[in-house]
Formats: sequence, structure tokens, C-alpha cells
Amino acid sequence: MSREPNRVAQGAERADAPAGARRHPARKFREGSFTADDERLAIEEPLEIRFAGRRFTLTMRTPGHDEELVAGFLLAEGFIEAPGDLGEIRRVRGPRGAPDPNAVDVILNVPVANLRERLKRNFTISSSCGVCGKTSIDAIQRRVAPIDSRMTVAAGTILELAPMMRRAQEIFAATGGLHAAALFVPSPSPARTNGARKNSRAEALVTKVKLEVLREDVGRHNAVDKVVGYALMNGMLPLETGLMAVSGRLSFEIVQKAAAAGVPILAAVSAPSSLAVELAQEVGITLVGFLRGGTFNLYCNPERIVPQVSAKLPT
Amino acid sequence: MSREPNRVAQGAERADAPAGARRHPARKFREGSFTADDERLAIEEPLEIRFAGRRFTLTMRTPGHDEELVAGFLLAEGFIEAPGDLGEIRRVRGPRGAPDPNAVDVILNVPVANLRERLKRNFTISSSCGVCGKTSIDAIQRRVAPIDSRMTVAAGTILELAPMMRRAQEIFAATGGLHAAALFVPSPSPARTNGARKNSRAEALVTKVKLEVLREDVGRHNAVDKVVGYALMNGMLPLETGLMAVSGRLSFEIVQKAAAAGVPILAAVSAPSSLAVELAQEVGITLVGFLRGGTFNLYCNPERIVPQVSAKLPT
Repeated sequence: MSREPNRVAQGAERADAPAGARRHPARKFREGSFTADDERLAIEEPLEIRFAGRRFTLTMRTPGHDEELVAGFLLAEGFIEAPGDLGEIRRVRGPRGAPDPNAVDVILNVPVANLRERLKRNFTISSSCGVCGKTSIDAIQRRVAPIDSRMTVAAGTILELAPMMRRAQEIFAATGGLHAAALFVPSPSPARTNGARKNSRAEALVTKVKLEVLREDVGRHNAVDKVVGYALMNGMLPLETGLMAVSGRLSFEIVQKAAAAGVPILAAVSAPSSLAVELAQEVGITLVGFLRGGTFNLYCNPERIVPQVSAKLPT
Repeated sequence: MSREPNRVAQGAERADAPAGARRHPARKFREGSFTADDERLAIEEPLEIRFAGRRFTLTMRTPGHDEELVAGFLLAEGFIEAPGDLGEIRRVRGPRGAPDPNAVDVILNVPVANLRERLKRNFTISSSCGVCGKTSIDAIQRRVAPIDSRMTVAAGTILELAPMMRRAQEIFAATGGLHAAALFVPSPSPARTNGARKNSRAEALVTKVKLEVLREDVGRHNAVDKVVGYALMNGMLPLETGLMAVSGRLSFEIVQKAAAAGVPILAAVSAPSSLAVELAQEVGITLVGFLRGGTFNLYCNPERIVPQVSAKLPT
């Protein structure tokens, strides 16, 4: 099996096109017989995350945007809360000094006592009342701020998210093997509201959005981590006027990550789970599912989406 | 939000129909306006797994077949190797003595020293050569036996797996929100080969299979764990003549679980990742992808599938 260079990256115009696919010989069964052909596979490789040199975890991911992945993961897990908490993410160097493409070392600007406290908060489950979805929701609520964005978006604009996302899914188009997460922002953008979380709210009806970033990965949670990490590293959190879209289904974990980033509207091409809806309801996220074919479902906090289909403002 | 009884389970004829869906009020945006309606959501709830009373891990899953889920998970992670290693899986009891639906306690028939050794084997990564897919494959290979089944199956029979699986996906049909994994066995079944791993091989061409078990879950890996757990608890491992099918994509982790169960043929409706193909190739699993619409792709170990389209044996 040869590791040929990636056709997607070669053909792409954008300099940051991810090298996320490679070719592999396959036999295709069509109409009664096999033919030999090449298939492009989405690349999956392990990433080892270390804390100050000590191994913390190993995750399978599609290489590319590893720093964003780590930053988003640390935010969702409650290890960091702001860009300043993230001291450094650097490649581990191998015995000959070459950077290891699959291992990063993280130095946090967080006192060790705070880290311990955060770990404890994450993993505390009340044993008196059993383990249930409510317990998990409470654990998330203890460490994320409620979403209080007054952003309103036209339903017609929500419909546009799915085709906009699909057009940007380069590796998916090549392999059929990747999940995607995307962040959309109003266009033209409202006044940036960094650091003024409680007081500054966008109230104008949003009828046009632009794709800020899209990331692809074999793991849906990784794609979301990369998008959240991008937003964190670019000083965009909390995402008071952001819309996040994901290519597949919506689980509890995906809503948790969106909540940590302060996303007011989260949309998925497919179905949400029961616990995804419950968490979104509790933290104040507007949850959109089955966004496809010119229709969608709205599961909770519906007030942010109004039945406006054209890009014109109401008269 | 009310928790109404599950329409799927109520309507189902089978006594073991999983109570995996519930209704939730939703607004549906269709042709310019919203209408209120109920949607059925796939249920997601946490499951806490304890080892002899001590918390080991928490996973999000669709309730139902929890014992199978735990058994399959423990096999895939290398904590157990045979049904006899699994001492007991019991519900944790709450303060008033009622069983907690979301917590199980596991007692293993495995010496503590062996457990430590297994944990160590799982997590040993050679630091001298960096972290890569090969490292992960080596780690799996150290604890699973190579698949040496000589089973051969007609391509036409492979094509039947997808519609057979889809017909059995009750909760998916109701919610669109669940992954499925299924185990198929030859029908009529060859002589059962329990315990005679190396010597007994099925060599007759398989042209007809029956669905042995199908499990659904919000997590694809959980659905596979449940199927593998079912096979373990029913004395069917290693699955010398079994075919496993999954509803979505094939990641490294799914192949790892199939390898632990000795599955010779693994098929997915969608794409495999690069590392899924590499692991399948190394351990000897025949990997089928994009099994849909009367076609499929074959990525490695193709000798087990022959281009036979009818259910008749070759003359």
C-alpha cells in the first residue's frame, strides 16, 4: 500500500487546504463484477496531547489544525476559559529533534489549584440521586455561562447554511468520509462585542451570513473542537452573534462544546438526541435539526428564528 | 416538556423492542412558515460503569441492552477475553434500594495483576518512534488474534446486508437519530466451531445469511459494543463465520472492536477512514465500504468475497 500525495490538497487553490485525504487501491463491485480502482480515503491518525510533558490523552483525528483542535477541546472540557489561559501548544520533538506530527505539548497559564478544581467540577456526579441526563446537564451548567444573545435570524437565512457548508466541504467531496463543522457570522458584521458579554446584544434581524470557518474531521466532535478553537484563538468568544452548523447528528457532547463557546444558534443536517435538546434548552441555545431540502425543525428556544424567507427586512 | 411513552416500543410486536425514542414538541419550517408538531427523538442518557464499586467511566448511550454494551466495551478494551472473565454486571442500587437505570457495577473474574498488565498493554506507546497510526495498530495487534477465517461469501449476499439492516432499524425509522450495528450469520449455519479457533474453518461459499442481532444507539461505537457483547454473552466468539455491518462510516475504533470479536467481514454503508483500512488489512479483516444502491467497495483482504451475484452455488 503506497501513500500517494493527496489529490485534494494538490488541486486546491487555497494555501490552507487541508491534506486530509489519500488514495488507496480498492475493488469496486458494480453490476456483477469487480473492477480495480483507486479510492480516496479520509485520513485518520492519532494525536497525543500532553500537559507539560506528561501524557494526558490520545484522540483519533484527521491531521490539520491541531492547535485549534486542542484549544477547542480544552475549552469544552473546562481546562481553559479564555485565550489568555492557553500558554502554548507546541509540537513534541522526536529523538532526532524532528517535530512529531502526532503529538503536542500544552502549557497552560492556569494555576495548578485551579486546574484541580476544574477537573473536580467536571467529574463530580452527585451519588445521592443517581446518574441521569439531568446530572450531566447540571455539570455543564456549573461551568458555562447561559446564552443570553438576543440575535434574531430570518428562517430563509438558516436554510442557506446547509448548501453553504456543503460547498466548502472539500475533503468530504473527495472521500465521503468526513464530518464538518462550520461557523457563520452576520454579514455585514455588527459591532464586535468582545469582552462586553452581558451588556452588548445584537438585536437587528440577521438576513445574511458569511462562512467564517469550516473544519473537517473523521470525528464530528473534533470538527467542532477545531471551529471553537479557531474562534477562541481569534478572540471571537463568546460567539454572541455566531451560528454553528454540523454535518451530521447532534449529540449531548456537540451541544456542550457549542455552549462552552457561547453559540446562540446551533444547526445540524440530521437529528438531535433527546439529551442534546434538553441541554440546549437549559443553557439557552436555539437548536435546529434536519436542516436539508429547504426545511428544518426547531427544537427549543425558537425566538431567535423568525419566519422570514427573503433576504429583505420586514416592511 | 413531557416524557411521553415511546411510540415505537408500543407499536412493536417484538417483546424486546427497545424503548429508544421519545416525543418532543418541535416547530417545523416548511414553505415559509412554522407549524407546531411532535418529533420523536432518539434517547441519549449517560451510563456510569463501575469496577467493583469504583467509578471507571461514563459514556453517553441509548438505554437498552446495557449489559451487552458493557461486555462488548470490556472485550474491545482488552479487560476481558472470554465469557468466563465476566463475573457479573449488576445495576447499582440507589439510596432507597431502587436500581439506578444509568449505572452498572462490574465484577470481573480476572486477577488484579492481569488487569494491570492489560491496562499497561493497552496504553503503552513506544516513545522512541513517535506517535502514528502504526503505533496504534501495533497496540491492537498485541492483544487480538489474527483473523484466519476462510469463509467466502457471494458478492450478491453482501449486497443484501444493507436492506436487511435497514428494515430492522426501528428507532432509526422513527427518529432518524440512531446508528446501527448488525451481526449476520450463514443460513443454514455451518457446524458451530466454538473453542476450536485455529483448526476449524468454514470453507463453503456462503450465499444466504440471516440477521442474528441488530442494535441501535446514538453512538456508533456503542451499537457495535452491544452487538459484540451479545455475541460474547451467547458464546459465539470468535465470530469465524460472522459478518458485521454498520450504518455509517468506519473508523479505526470500529475495526478495533470487530477485530476483538474475530469478525472476518466488516461492511459499512458509508466510507472507511485511512486507519480503519490499515488496521483491517493488518489483522486480516475483509473491509467493505459504500454498501448501498446495489454496489460496494472492497478495501482489503478481498479473497473472502467472490463475484457471485445469484443465491445459487457455482456449477
